[in-house]
Amino acid sequence: MSDSRPINDRFLRALAREPVDRTPVWMMRQAGRYLPEYRAVRERAGDFMTLCRTPELACEVTLQPLRRFALDAAILFSDILTIPDALGLGLHFVEGEGPRFERPLRTPQAIHDLPPLEVETDLAYVMDAVRLIRRELDGQVPLIGFSGSPWTLACYMVEGSSPGDFARIKTLIYDAPELAHLLLGRLSAAVTAYLNAQIRAGAQAVQIFDTWGGVLSGPAFEAFSRSYLHRIVAGLIRHHAGRKVPVIVFTKGGGLWLDALADTGADALGLDWTVDLGAARRQVGARVALQGNLDPAVLRARPTVIREEVGRLLAAYGAGSGHVFNLGHGITPDIAVEHAQAFIEAVGDLSPAYHR
Amino acid sequence: MSDSRPINDRFLRALAREPVDRTPVWMMRQAGRYLPEYRAVRERAGDFMTLCRTPELACEVTLQPLRRFALDAAILFSDILTIPDALGLGLHFVEGEGPRFERPLRTPQAIHDLPPLEVETDLAYVMDAVRLIRRELDGQVPLIGFSGSPWTLACYMVEGSSPGDFARIKTLIYDAPELAHLLLGRLSAAVTAYLNAQIRAGAQAVQIFDTWGGVLSGPAFEAFSRSYLHRIVAGLIRHHAGRKVPVIVFTKGGGLWLDALADTGADALGLDWTVDLGAARRQVGARVALQGNLDPAVLRARPTVIREEVGRLLAAYGAGSGHVFNLGHGITPDIAVEHAQAFIEAVGDLSPAYHR
Repeated sequence: MSDSRPINDRFLRALAREPVDRTPVWMMRQAGRYLPEYRAVRERAGDFMTLCRTPELACEVTLQPLRRFALDAAILFSDILTIPDALGLGLHFVEGEGPRFERPLRTPQAIHDLPPLEVETDLAYVMDAVRLIRRELDGQVPLIGFSGSPWTLACYMVEGSSPGDFARIKTLIYDAPELAHLLLGRLSAAVTAYLNAQIRAGAQAVQIFDTWGGVLSGPAFEAFSRSYLHRIVAGLIRHHAGRKVPVIVFTKGGGLWLDALADTGADALGLDWTVDLGAARRQVGARVALQGNLDPAVLRARPTVIREEVGRLLAAYGAGSGHVFNLGHGITPDIAVEHAQAFIEAVGDLSPAYHR
Repeated sequence: MSDSRPINDRFLRALAREPVDRTPVWMMRQAGRYLPEYRAVRERAGDFMTLCRTPELACEVTLQPLRRFALDAAILFSDILTIPDALGLGLHFVEGEGPRFERPLRTPQAIHDLPPLEVETDLAYVMDAVRLIRRELDGQVPLIGFSGSPWTLACYMVEGSSPGDFARIKTLIYDAPELAHLLLGRLSAAVTAYLNAQIRAGAQAVQIFDTWGGVLSGPAFEAFSRSYLHRIVAGLIRHHAGRKVPVIVFTKGGGLWLDALADTGADALGLDWTVDLGAARRQVGARVALQGNLDPAVLRARPTVIREEVGRLLAAYGAGSGHVFNLGHGITPDIAVEHAQAFIEAVGDLSPAYHR
């Protein structure tokens, strides 16, 4: 593997708050169903998990959006729930309903009996995909690896599917906190090992998706999510192949806790669209870079509106580096490709003025 | 109608930030399915809307929780979607799926064609219920009236059911903002007239439920929700029958916008459980009282845990008046009555220490 910087290193430079010529941009779920070429590969694969588990197919869909748009980073095509799947919970996807586990954690014994994750064997297919993508990218843009956060993984593992009211997992944290901590501690070790394996395989930055952190009260977020994010960041390989490996922490609904999140040791925070980007920048100061945060629903509007909203966010962040443009959540399947294009182009056109 | 203060006026005093002997408490959705006596009346009524539309039954379920618990307020039993139902959208409830409209707003013409609300005729059943409940309450505790916010009503009216991804309503605000403002302006007039009619019928305080405000970006929240809340508060009857009629604004997920919400002219803000009660108090200062904000999921835990969490919130708010204890969202059907009891008792037992 080459240890040289990628040819386009805007993304890594912005995360390090070093000068850039324009604001870098990528989209959460950029390899996704809004792309016809993705849907074709997905159909060929048969089901979603086959797509994740077949490195050639995962590589192909990872690269697809880069062929269309001037994106500044690629993100590994995978799922946030690969760890619980590898731990034996049996992940599958029901059309229109999202992920489901065949064997959710329904008893204390099931939590005690969770096997340790043997990341290099159980999730070898992920590291194979990372290596293959790096080879195919050939240094054009950096590759982002990722994982779900322990809290988010625990939500799915205990609820068994997309959590509606979080009844089971919240009962666990309030009624049996020591058991919740046992589960979260094990998941933290697994996430750390998983992200480090991705870094060793070639991921040049990693993002932790704390999708469900925002459903907790402040003290519960601190105890059951943020403290584990902190622990993971401390355990990650931060320099590899001669380069810094930046870590992005994205807590959806975490806008009230930016100070605490900035203190996890992460290099950048992902922001959902409810957060005021300018206020967030003033709040976190020089501690972290920021990534986000266009409401993905804006991509349903006319391209002129998309451009206006991009302009508004660039103005809110203001001049200087430290901002990676992104959506505030993943792009949805119903978005027209031309609208995604308009978003990427608007960042390219309007952002240089903020980097003179 | 008597214009005397209710015998127990803790709730009204706390909203006015006047001294109280202990922190008043009520629960959002306190007349609800967690109560066996509610389920019995609900079964007798046949369907949910019959229960809402029959003043004797609405009165009966409004009073039920007061017979069990030492609550400091009653809240009218009704639904936040009575206005769109009265406007002809055809509200019904599908078991386990929440509200649905037979005729959602699917075209610009449908928005233009919305009839004006004739509140005293179209929603006479609500005012009949308010008068009956006031008579039955006989001055024991104050009665709270309520409505959904314009933004929240618009979400349901445009989506047609509980909004999942808010695709239609967000497309409307971004792609046809003038049409969205037409709808929201009409709904604001309807909500104002509706709440004023409830006040004239005897509601001693009113709450506006902005259930979906938190799904918007900051500027969109200002434009499409908060500005209309402000307009409604300005149009409400603020003194009636010799008393101040306090207004509570509750934006779920609005924790980032407390300053702007405090400037709506409301007397109090409802807070969901993600908000730090102490920080919120310091932020809003003497502008508004605060209501909330225990995570309703805590009621699934053991009574000792419920008591601890109540104690934590009382300590977070600190000494002095201006706090109405409540949940951060409605109580859910799976909660044991004994756990609701433990919550109410904990507020009664632990709060006097903060009012010496």
